[in-house]
Amino acid sequence: MMGAVLLSEFATEIVVPVCAVIGIAFSLVQWLLVSRVKLNPERHSSGNSNKNGYSDYLIEEEEGLNDPSVVPKCAEIQSAISEGATSFLFTEYQYVGIFMVAFAILIFLFLGSVEGFSSKSQPCTYDKEKTCKPALATAIFSTISFLLGAITSVLSGFLGMKIATYANARTTLEARKGVGKAFIVAFRSGAVMGFLLAANGLLVLFVAINLFKLYYGDDWEGLFEAITGYGLGGSSMALFGRVGGGIYTKAADVGADLVGKVERNIPEDDPRNPAVIADNVGDNVGDIAGMGSDLFGSYAESSCAALVVASISSFGINHEFTAMLYPLLISSVGILVCLITTLFATDFFEIKAVKEIEPALKKQLIISTVLMTVGIAIVTWVGVPSSFTIYNFGDQKVVKNCDAPNFVRLGKVRTFNSSNSDRQLFLCVGVGLWAGLIIGFVTEYYTSNAYSPVQDVADSCRTGAATNVIFGLALGYKSVIIPIFAIAISIFVSFSFAAMYGIAVAALGMLSTIATGLAIDAYGPISDNAGGIAEMAGMSHHIRERTDALDAAGNTTAAIGKGFAIGSAALVSLALFGAFVSRAAISTVDVLTPKVFIGLIVGAMLPYWFSAMTMKSVGSAALKMVEEVRRQFNTIPGLMEGRAKPDYATCVKISTDASIKEMIPPGALVMLTPLIVGTFFGVETLAGVLAGALVSGVQIAISASNTGGAWDNAKKYIEAGASEHARTLGPKGSDPHKAAVIGDTVGDPLKDTSGPSLNILIKLMAVESLVFAPFFATHGGLLFKIF
Amino acid sequence: MMGAVLLSEFATEIVVPVCAVIGIAFSLVQWLLVSRVKLNPERHSSGNSNKNGYSDYLIEEEEGLNDPSVVPKCAEIQSAISEGATSFLFTEYQYVGIFMVAFAILIFLFLGSVEGFSSKSQPCTYDKEKTCKPALATAIFSTISFLLGAITSVLSGFLGMKIATYANARTTLEARKGVGKAFIVAFRSGAVMGFLLAANGLLVLFVAINLFKLYYGDDWEGLFEAITGYGLGGSSMALFGRVGGGIYTKAADVGADLVGKVERNIPEDDPRNPAVIADNVGDNVGDIAGMGSDLFGSYAESSCAALVVASISSFGINHEFTAMLYPLLISSVGILVCLITTLFATDFFEIKAVKEIEPALKKQLIISTVLMTVGIAIVTWVGVPSSFTIYNFGDQKVVKNCDAPNFVRLGKVRTFNSSNSDRQLFLCVGVGLWAGLIIGFVTEYYTSNAYSPVQDVADSCRTGAATNVIFGLALGYKSVIIPIFAIAISIFVSFSFAAMYGIAVAALGMLSTIATGLAIDAYGPISDNAGGIAEMAGMSHHIRERTDALDAAGNTTAAIGKGFAIGSAALVSLALFGAFVSRAAISTVDVLTPKVFIGLIVGAMLPYWFSAMTMKSVGSAALKMVEEVRRQFNTIPGLMEGRAKPDYATCVKISTDASIKEMIPPGALVMLTPLIVGTFFGVETLAGVLAGALVSGVQIAISASNTGGAWDNAKKYIEAGASEHARTLGPKGSDPHKAAVIGDTVGDPLKDTSGPSLNILIKLMAVESLVFAPFFATHGGLLFKIF
Repeated sequence: MMGAVLLSEFATEIVVPVCAVIGIAFSLVQWLLVSRVKLNPERHSSGNSNKNGYSDYLIEEEEGLNDPSVVPKCAEIQSAISEGATSFLFTEYQYVGIFMVAFAILIFLFLGSVEGFSSKSQPCTYDKEKTCKPALATAIFSTISFLLGAITSVLSGFLGMKIATYANARTTLEARKGVGKAFIVAFRSGAVMGFLLAANGLLVLFVAINLFKLYYGDDWEGLFEAITGYGLGGSSMALFGRVGGGIYTKAADVGADLVGKVERNIPEDDPRNPAVIADNVGDNVGDIAGMGSDLFGSYAESSCAALVVASISSFGINHEFTAMLYPLLISSVGILVCLITTLFATDFFEIKAVKEIEPALKKQLIISTVLMTVGIAIVTWVGVPSSFTIYNFGDQKVVKNCDAPNFVRLGKVRTFNSSNSDRQLFLCVGVGLWAGLIIGFVTEYYTSNAYSPVQDVADSCRTGAATNVIFGLALGYKSVIIPIFAIAISIFVSFSFAAMYGIAVAALGMLSTIATGLAIDAYGPISDNAGGIAEMAGMSHHIRERTDALDAAGNTTAAIGKGFAIGSAALVSLALFGAFVSRAAISTVDVLTPKVFIGLIVGAMLPYWFSAMTMKSVGSAALKMVEEVRRQFNTIPGLMEGRAKPDYATCVKISTDASIKEMIPPGALVMLTPLIVGTFFGVETLAGVLAGALVSGVQIAISASNTGGAWDNAKKYIEAGASEHARTLGPKGSDPHKAAVIGDTVGDPLKDTSGPSLNILIKLMAVESLVFAPFFATHGGLLFKIF
Repeated sequence: MMGAVLLSEFATEIVVPVCAVIGIAFSLVQWLLVSRVKLNPERHSSGNSNKNGYSDYLIEEEEGLNDPSVVPKCAEIQSAISEGATSFLFTEYQYVGIFMVAFAILIFLFLGSVEGFSSKSQPCTYDKEKTCKPALATAIFSTISFLLGAITSVLSGFLGMKIATYANARTTLEARKGVGKAFIVAFRSGAVMGFLLAANGLLVLFVAINLFKLYYGDDWEGLFEAITGYGLGGSSMALFGRVGGGIYTKAADVGADLVGKVERNIPEDDPRNPAVIADNVGDNVGDIAGMGSDLFGSYAESSCAALVVASISSFGINHEFTAMLYPLLISSVGILVCLITTLFATDFFEIKAVKEIEPALKKQLIISTVLMTVGIAIVTWVGVPSSFTIYNFGDQKVVKNCDAPNFVRLGKVRTFNSSNSDRQLFLCVGVGLWAGLIIGFVTEYYTSNAYSPVQDVADSCRTGAATNVIFGLALGYKSVIIPIFAIAISIFVSFSFAAMYGIAVAALGMLSTIATGLAIDAYGPISDNAGGIAEMAGMSHHIRERTDALDAAGNTTAAIGKGFAIGSAALVSLALFGAFVSRAAISTVDVLTPKVFIGLIVGAMLPYWFSAMTMKSVGSAALKMVEEVRRQFNTIPGLMEGRAKPDYATCVKISTDASIKEMIPPGALVMLTPLIVGTFFGVETLAGVLAGALVSGVQIAISASNTGGAWDNAKKYIEAGASEHARTLGPKGSDPHKAAVIGDTVGDPLKDTSGPSLNILIKLMAVESLVFAPFFATHGGLLFKIF
């Protein structure tokens, strides 16, 4: 019997939501623990004996600097950052909301027109003898799931930003008690975001499937086709979050640095710098909200890709519900695994010295990967039947299956009926999971200043900024090699074992530890902000040194997070691409046909076009910021001397306006390309475009984010002067340091704007093509039809 | 009757060599005209009345500066440059010679092993009923044609370098009489190289075909398969020429600039700079010899690709010799067209002012394209039958042709039997030709400082080097868009009309004006050297300004030349790729099979790996150069004051040693990848690698060379101060100018080392795969066979 699994349908219906609720509850507990750090000075004076309270030994007291005004100052700065971030996100969401509605209408019209808005039931796409729900239903439910995905994505980003701006000043205050305390606050806050996002995404998807099922009943093909809208919604919001947020944060950062650090020679985050609040707001809207939306999008898309492939394989055809929901089960176990992993950072061990921070974060990755390997084994054992069939498009073409003459359009049937077939599926998920870890470690090697690549880049600053830039670019290019091999091996293994389904679950495997990944990722910008607040509140240099140490580790984890995001994006978009090809009824995507090849070469060009747009946007916005900052320094008397306050709000406004305006052209490029290519050139050319954009984009994305990370840490390496070699290059203000600052500034848009946005470019075009596939298959290729 | 063409076989056998000889004769005439400028002071004093002699009005006299010591000084510097270049090339050729012999043996062993070194005749590959020459013959003749190609390539590069170093000082001396005179000398010298190379390449190929035919007789399939070795030989030499020469020139350039311009604040080409001779030598070995080998390689490969496809189409099967040699006829007419075009620059018009230089060079491109369009029409009319058949692999798969049951493995047969079929072939060549012109103009738009893109980059120097680098990178990315569309359209049109044969002849169309392209390309480094010699000989600033004007135009033409090289490389490698796929008996290259997809993504990574290697090489070599130059400035007393002479030879040696050592790893990457992938992973994965490297490499190559060109000209824009806007950024030594110098230095390895080498990467891997295809098809894919 094919459907024999240990986990019953009923149990699955319980396990998934329970895990999601546990995740949400855990994130609330973390939030509660963070909130115990009080920003309210009244309670401070009451001096309770709680171990997180103020009765602890403070270094300010140690140095006789226990300035009671520090707490309200921090609170004030925090609220300025929080207000700036909230106001930007609200402005952004207004524009994005308009887009969301317009695009929802577009989806409805395109998909509805496939069968002329008929509400009559129709033969199923893959099995012509059965009757399925009308195309109009797909149109309606795709639109609904698009909106659901979009709203969940927006919510994820917004909540992440809220907790980050809630935690930053608290991290600063805890840093007075020691680096370990500060680390725990920052990390717990990251965990709030990680768990909230992972659990929320899972719960909404689960609920949507169950609600849609009320209408669709046994038509799982239609049900999971409609569900793909969830991925599209999630990713399209992520696009604007990444691009808009990325332009915001880097315009402010580059603008602040160019005048503050380079021209005026004042330290980073100095309160005299008018762009300093905008810079700190940027960390929250770009690195937190943007990253959150991005990874939520990847998660939603890989789930959708796996579901849609499963729905037309034996899981779907035989209505094996537990096996069908295997992707959701993986994510559910992932939440539990990440929960245990988090305890290793916050409860089981305690960080006592600066040098323990980076190993603690690395341990998070290793522990979660090892535990998750066990978790996958269990889920696969209880949730997957020992024999099943996956339809493998691409391996062989337009084969009419002789045993099932009405079941057309799919390629070679791949049956797993040995007793090992569930083990093979375990290998698919596992290879994705471990490939993620390898990508993470390679990224760390190339971006951490503990290893020779970054030290070489720092060393090249001796001969000036030009050699620094040359070495940094070369490092980024070189860092692509191993991740690409890791991705290639994952693809080969998972495809060999379970065709496109294998690739989709490999992507899910890579993303199964998303809660931990996001926690260590969000930890970075929180620490960065904490340092900024310490500087602005005029706190002791000891505090700043502690937050700097937290931040340096955060730079590396940010790069690792980007590595994960890119690696999973590559797998996800390949899986989506496969689903699209199947849905669009393409038999082969043959590079040697001109339709496909021109798609391939133009697709490979798109990441360049997109990067040109975003980098130019950052450059122009930064120039405006520079002018404003200069204007303020020149016209506000006493600003340099610290007697007058700068006009922070104008700088916030410049970043806001620029990012809103500048996110439209790159957004349009990504959203319109599949529509235009599919409608006018047809599905073969579109398939070429997707493949080209994927293989070219993933390289630029990895190299851009690693180059930027390396430059940043090369600068920090010189500043910290921790080794003899580093001291020969420093100190701050030396010629090599100035060269390093130039590299860091060049890297800013690469690592925080154009690089990470490229993930979304490749994923979003693929999922959009999948959603619109029914339309393209019916009405696409107008241009070739005319000629 | 299919074979009815106006040009008889006999006439073809006359026309091709006659055109080649005309080309060689023309280049000798140009050389004679250049040699009339005397570097010998004895003859100078005799004062002949020739219009190129010294009785002309010299500006030195005008300024009372007629220093008779200038001529011998120039002669001395020239001989130093020439000696350095010759000695480097000889050293390079020693290493390359070893490689050449080793690789020739490898070719023989691999191809010979296909049928176990049997000397028995065998059934033909495509028509099993006929008998063809043994595989051993293919092994022997492929090896011979490989060596022929390699030697011709080396000779082309060497002769180009010789004439360039012969012309540079003569250009300097002519600049005393006026900018027009200097222009003509530089341009004529470029023409010597252009015509020598184009005619030589054609003649050797023609002779080889005729000699091979003595053995092969009617087995044209085997004959033209063996001829592909010519392309491989040409391109593999080009690889070492480009990479070795590129590292040499940029190590010297970057090293000289970093100490001389940035640290010591002495002008470019100042004789006090110890690296100045190495820098000037570099222009000749990198930009001249490297570029010459590169374009010769493209030419040889596109001819071979067209020939091998034609040999298995009706031209070959029906033994229509004239139609078969259509690719060579195009090149023959190209030589005549370029000859006429050259007269427009040297004889029909005269340049009187600086601002006429760039338009004159642009006119060369336009005139040659327009004339060539007529030329192609004539050749196609007289040389191509009105009905013919091209086999189109890729459009449909493993179709056993029912009419010819023994003719297997090729796809859909495409018959051109309407009266328009020869016109369609005309369109294929024409679309390539005009796409080349478009790429040229787009390149000019993005790299000339007469237009807004470069001016914007210059403007961004206001806020420092970081924004300059960001804007420059964005410009490079953006400049990819139109060339990629032009290439895509060429591919689509030419493939639609004549399948892979169409693409091969489109590439030939783009390269048909190669003599003119090389002339304007070689003109650049000659002018650059002329300026260097003027500076070193201590000549008047008027001279330097004139050579600078020549050089600025040369920067743009160099970028245009690179655009051509890249565009044609894309078409060539696609055609070679198609020929490989046919020869390796692959039915489809389906992106959706894991074997192909992993090839695609790894192939797309290779250009990054390669660029990382070459950029790092330039960086490391430049660092060594910097140390040596600093050492000399610090230890040689009186060097800065001009009282002591620097030790030029040590700098020349550093560049030589570094480039020889550093060219091995990237060379190995390119040469070994097809062998390893083909042998262990098989032909499908190799096809994926080729496609991936092609679509990814072409983007990086275009953006790298345009970014570098733009930075160089942004710097020149600020230095020249020709507009009010430019003057607000200058003068030399201002902060924006310093920022521009940093951009220029970063761009050096991009535009002269890694970017142009990528052309060769994509072409060479394709042609190597084609040559080894019989081996891979028989013994390839070991890894998959084992598992």
